[in-house]
Amino acid sequence: MRILVTGGLGILGAGLVKELRLRGHHVVSCDLPHQPDEIGFSLRTDVKLPLYARCDVGEFRQIERVIEQMGPFDYVYHCAAEFGRWNGEDFYETLWRTNAVGTKNIIRLQERLKFRLIHFSSSEVYGDWPDLMVETVMEEYEIKQMNDYAMTKWVNEMQVRNSATQYATESVVVRIFNTYGPGEYYSPYRSVNCRFLYCALHGLPWTVFRGHSRTSTYLADSVRTLANIVDNFKPGETYNIGGNSLHTIEGLSDIVLKVTGADPALVEYRDSEILTTKAKRVDVSKAIRDLDHKNSYGLEEGMRITTDWMRTVYKINGHGLSQFDGTAVVEGNGELVDEVKPAQRDIAQETLKVG
Amino acid sequence: MRILVTGGLGILGAGLVKELRLRGHHVVSCDLPHQPDEIGFSLRTDVKLPLYARCDVGEFRQIERVIEQMGPFDYVYHCAAEFGRWNGEDFYETLWRTNAVGTKNIIRLQERLKFRLIHFSSSEVYGDWPDLMVETVMEEYEIKQMNDYAMTKWVNEMQVRNSATQYATESVVVRIFNTYGPGEYYSPYRSVNCRFLYCALHGLPWTVFRGHSRTSTYLADSVRTLANIVDNFKPGETYNIGGNSLHTIEGLSDIVLKVTGADPALVEYRDSEILTTKAKRVDVSKAIRDLDHKNSYGLEEGMRITTDWMRTVYKINGHGLSQFDGTAVVEGNGELVDEVKPAQRDIAQETLKVG
Repeated sequence: MRILVTGGLGILGAGLVKELRLRGHHVVSCDLPHQPDEIGFSLRTDVKLPLYARCDVGEFRQIERVIEQMGPFDYVYHCAAEFGRWNGEDFYETLWRTNAVGTKNIIRLQERLKFRLIHFSSSEVYGDWPDLMVETVMEEYEIKQMNDYAMTKWVNEMQVRNSATQYATESVVVRIFNTYGPGEYYSPYRSVNCRFLYCALHGLPWTVFRGHSRTSTYLADSVRTLANIVDNFKPGETYNIGGNSLHTIEGLSDIVLKVTGADPALVEYRDSEILTTKAKRVDVSKAIRDLDHKNSYGLEEGMRITTDWMRTVYKINGHGLSQFDGTAVVEGNGELVDEVKPAQRDIAQETLKVG
Repeated sequence: MRILVTGGLGILGAGLVKELRLRGHHVVSCDLPHQPDEIGFSLRTDVKLPLYARCDVGEFRQIERVIEQMGPFDYVYHCAAEFGRWNGEDFYETLWRTNAVGTKNIIRLQERLKFRLIHFSSSEVYGDWPDLMVETVMEEYEIKQMNDYAMTKWVNEMQVRNSATQYATESVVVRIFNTYGPGEYYSPYRSVNCRFLYCALHGLPWTVFRGHSRTSTYLADSVRTLANIVDNFKPGETYNIGGNSLHTIEGLSDIVLKVTGADPALVEYRDSEILTTKAKRVDVSKAIRDLDHKNSYGLEEGMRITTDWMRTVYKINGHGLSQFDGTAVVEGNGELVDEVKPAQRDIAQETLKVG
């Protein structure tokens, strides 16, 4: 199969590119930065087989060129998006351009070229829905999304749906619930799993908001399920991809303390965070039925593997704390403490453990 | 001094951040991707002292916020730009937004806040000027820039000049000539020094266009000179920052063969490339006079250090060729060859050798 993965340097995108290639597919990916294996559009490409393109999906010409010059594609996994609630609030221009306009660009090309689309949505579309999140909730109830990120994701689902109605395009929507694992580099805007771990490994305090519950899915489990879609593609379907057991944020924090050995005094407890869904219970039975979705990693097991990966990429030795705290500062002796430097694509094959 | 470096993850930006901090300045940087030491604008910042902000300078609100929340700044080194001729042709929407609008955004903020600006221009503004490139050429002759990248850089210089005239802003323009060194990660759009080295180390063929001459400046020499600007700031001045000896592209290629031990059969020779300046002889006497500019590294010496750095970041062992060719491909046995993964900020302090 010939497959394009947009957002191919993100945590899910990079995992998918690897898994789909292991399964023998021809996989091209695109993302915002330059990369060594990229195609040179107007100049000589040095590498033998460029399988990456620099592309801003928010610019129609750029994504059109990728598909015209590196395609045709049977399937497009559209992972490219500004991710996360606070990231969306802080970078809303980029959010709307990439998510709303970018996805519309993909859909316009799909209408012309008829590739099959797997669109990446988010559990955030369920808003503050208090009960079990089943895919059909929005057929029956009017959900109010609680932040711009969630709104772009819901807008995208409606864009996909309208295109299917008007132009008979064939798409599947996946609603991704909290996913963590090797390949998720720390920033303050990342998942709570990533942030707690990073803080614990660097001796930095973190805050636990009481009264919130989530599921967590280990990356390899999500990626395997997502890769299965091309083998059982059902146009028009929407799937929740998430964990099967709810845990509190306090419980997650406790696991972080356990697997890192960090000082419990680093944890500060606070009351419920505003405008954030309190509990997210998810029904994943449809993904189990159609896509053989499995949660094969327990939370503690997955967090242990992620800890090992994070220790490697942030160069934290042994079980003690790093000399780095993620900032580059001039110390008392005038020596510069080197910055922490994540390698964007450094997902160790052995820690991903797909399959 | 309080200093902002835009484009702080680029080759010059990253070098400057490091050098200016070593000199004791308070340095904040910004660039497009998320980073571990970034500030969280609407949410808790985990790291103790965030000195990085995610920011697209093409979005006024984003750069305004960086300066308001992390400033005030005495100086802004404006390195953020889409770089290079072919990169500009292939990504012209991004080029004009970042370079033309982004620089205008910086200037508008400068008019309001009165920081001093060091604007990064390019030797490309000299077009196909056949004689010695002296800073005053454009006072006397009408130069036609030969590509959109060059045009944006010349537009920027006029924007800076007009603002100085109308609003008495204080700026210095630096015209950077071909600079190379550790921290320049390979893509097909990078400098000829970077591309030849990368190809040689990976056993990939490269093309030498005959009849072109350039200077090459080793990164540490450029960075030292640039960092000196804040100690002798002369508003309204323009400086060439470049090498003092011309070499042919054939000569550079020969050095690459020598320092890497690559097979000379990899080199293909062709006649002159269209729309590219043939010889760039540069007068750097003003930078020597005002900024103590020095070319302390010979080309072979600098290329040797850069080779060592590139061997490290692309994991090339010994003097032989890498198992990687910069692409991620499924080999005959179905095993995935791992991608090459540059760490964006991985400028080894010892190879930079500033000072």
